Amino acid sequence: MTPKEELQGRIKRLQDKMTAVECDGVLILQNVDLYYFSGTMQNSRLYIPAFGEPVLFCRKNLNRAASECPWGLIPVSNYRSIPDSLSELGYPLPKRLGLEIDVLPAAVYLGLIRLFSGSEVLDASSWIGDLRAVKSPYEMEIIRRAGRKMADAFASVPSLIKLGRSELAAAMRVENELRKLGHQGCVRMRGFNQEFFYGHLLSGSNGCLASFNDGVTAGKGLGSFFPQGPGEKIIQVNEPIFLDYVGVFDGYNIDQTRMYVSGVLPERLKYAFQVALEIQARLTEHIKPGAVASDLYHLAFDIADGAGLSQNFMGYGSERVKFVGHGVGLELDERPVVAPGFRVSLEAGMVIALEPKFVIPGLGIAGIENTWLVTDSGAEKITVLPDELVTLPGDNILLSS
Amino acid sequence: MTPKEELQGRIKRLQDKMTAVECDGVLILQNVDLYYFSGTMQNSRLYIPAFGEPVLFCRKNLNRAASECPWGLIPVSNYRSIPDSLSELGYPLPKRLGLEIDVLPAAVYLGLIRLFSGSEVLDASSWIGDLRAVKSPYEMEIIRRAGRKMADAFASVPSLIKLGRSELAAAMRVENELRKLGHQGCVRMRGFNQEFFYGHLLSGSNGCLASFNDGVTAGKGLGSFFPQGPGEKIIQVNEPIFLDYVGVFDGYNIDQTRMYVSGVLPERLKYAFQVALEIQARLTEHIKPGAVASDLYHLAFDIADGAGLSQNFMGYGSERVKFVGHGVGLELDERPVVAPGFRVSLEAGMVIALEPKFVIPGLGIAGIENTWLVTDSGAEKITVLPDELVTLPGDNILLSS
Repeated sequence: MTPKEELQGRIKRLQDKMTAVECDGVLILQNVDLYYFSGTMQNSRLYIPAFGEPVLFCRKNLNRAASECPWGLIPVSNYRSIPDSLSELGYPLPKRLGLEIDVLPAAVYLGLIRLFSGSEVLDASSWIGDLRAVKSPYEMEIIRRAGRKMADAFASVPSLIKLGRSELAAAMRVENELRKLGHQGCVRMRGFNQEFFYGHLLSGSNGCLASFNDGVTAGKGLGSFFPQGPGEKIIQVNEPIFLDYVGVFDGYNIDQTRMYVSGVLPERLKYAFQVALEIQARLTEHIKPGAVASDLYHLAFDIADGAGLSQNFMGYGSERVKFVGHGVGLELDERPVVAPGFRVSLEAGMVIALEPKFVIPGLGIAGIENTWLVTDSGAEKITVLPDELVTLPGDNILLSS
Repeated sequence: MTPKEELQGRIKRLQDKMTAVECDGVLILQNVDLYYFSGTMQNSRLYIPAFGEPVLFCRKNLNRAASECPWGLIPVSNYRSIPDSLSELGYPLPKRLGLEIDVLPAAVYLGLIRLFSGSEVLDASSWIGDLRAVKSPYEMEIIRRAGRKMADAFASVPSLIKLGRSELAAAMRVENELRKLGHQGCVRMRGFNQEFFYGHLLSGSNGCLASFNDGVTAGKGLGSFFPQGPGEKIIQVNEPIFLDYVGVFDGYNIDQTRMYVSGVLPERLKYAFQVALEIQARLTEHIKPGAVASDLYHLAFDIADGAGLSQNFMGYGSERVKFVGHGVGLELDERPVVAPGFRVSLEAGMVIALEPKFVIPGLGIAGIENTWLVTDSGAEKITVLPDELVTLPGDNILLSS
């Protein structure tokens, strides 16, 4: 349960922003933002005035919302009563109202526009995104714990991957290890049409397959209806086995990629993996408050270019994606984005997944990914599992499933 | 891969609707609708004119989209080029443009309004929803196969549930059985803020706990950050063990609930379970083309009321939800809804999950859920697993995890 002081700090930071942009109230609807500002994810709407305490309008479940959220709770059967209810509570109707324009469905947005017809509507997306990008000490502790759980879950991974078994068969064992430690299952993403299930366990050339998603890899998946993640391909000797997994513990996402091989990795992939580690080492030297996200991207690209791998960096040829890292938190795709054009300065408390990766056509993918906390003294590694390429034990040929 | 003739049939049905409402073009963006009308879920936008062939504007992955979608494919780097591109292709710009108002994020919707500033925008949500509610013979075969896989996965469930083990520990074993058979993991829902992970394995009074979600049950879940599904509660003797699971195979959702007990179910729950079976029997007698969805709800309610369980039907007291069934397909929450006010007539090809359930405070929940196909000769059972309450074998006390 989120402590009241923690929630008060979050509300205060949003209210400071609201005051700066002359916004009188923000209405929060999306489940993750709702949880962040109220402590509950029950069916409700949170009104945050520029001054004073928030109010939670709740449909269901009232008891759960009341036990999780410290703000005043108003039971409602229909959210259309919110403006009248605000007036009765003595809150002036907002002249300027902030809404989550990035995630509200158009139908819901249009309904709110009609309901608050006297208000000018502002886009609160970037205020919320910027604010959530900087984690509090309370959140940092949850995130550190999640990083350790991710390492615990992965301790047994080398024994779970067997030659002669499909990617899916190996993946379901990894999923089970994560679930045992309390992985919530659903990986929450903010981006439209984005979805993700546990991880991408990809072998050999499946690591080269891009898809709809905003990431570098996708893999073949189970079919056109779910075109990402592990599929029916059988894991072979001497090919890269690439595990890009998201741990979600106590609501927080941790992003981590590790490489495995049975036998020997092709030289080109070995080389690419070393370059990825070098990029990671150089970037993390530069991670500190004040460093500029886009500068980090260009530094990474220059190292890749210097190593003769510019065409392979974060995809191949025309399929390269233009970023090398992204924020993580209650959602997998948070701010800041480490990409060209993102001239945002890092701040202590930001949590960033850095993922330098190289696609070598026909052979597969090589790379690394760790989640890092930006601190005043530099980058703190959250995903504490060792980075090394893991050579699978000699007895990893499948004897029985 | 979806056959071209199948996709042609779907496009034709939408075009018939468009002609009837004088809509000149529909632009499809959401991943599930995109897959339904184009066969691909790659990062793309599908323009469907009222007359003639659709065009797919694709950002990535072009090769995958081209191999999955039979419509003309135009590679684009930015979707803002669509109107110009349409003109170049000889398509007149739509005077009236249909959009997925129910699921498009407001930011995306506002961008489209600006991009198609000369067009009047219509809400295509209900046309798409009504059309997708009626499954084709091609889809029926996929759905029947999914129903059999669900039964196969559940064959081993009685051996997986152990007294002394937590709900979560039992649930992860069930998840593993489903995943083995190709469950895609992600359960897709159309409703705002709705999410679901595999199933609700709930024991005893946890079955009484409602939450944010639109369903009857939720359970405690793992915490306020994921307030549904199995949690840490230990499964006990003589309490209901309730498994409401969604199988997703080849993209299609199948919804099924079964009851288990170790020892003896409390009399009140046994009685409620029998009433649920009776409601199911009566409703399925009435399922045929022309039956009215809201009439089915009222029939169910009247049987519950006659059995003295009106206060327990689909929740308890003020927490009751007002439906007894819902369509399923590529999404879990499809049309029709079997609820008061939904005066829609059933059609052959509709696939409906019927879930009469009763919450008995302090004791738990009892009920049944099956997925049914509406045919000209009545209801065909898709979830072929037997309905009976399963008494777990005597040796189901946990010896080792």
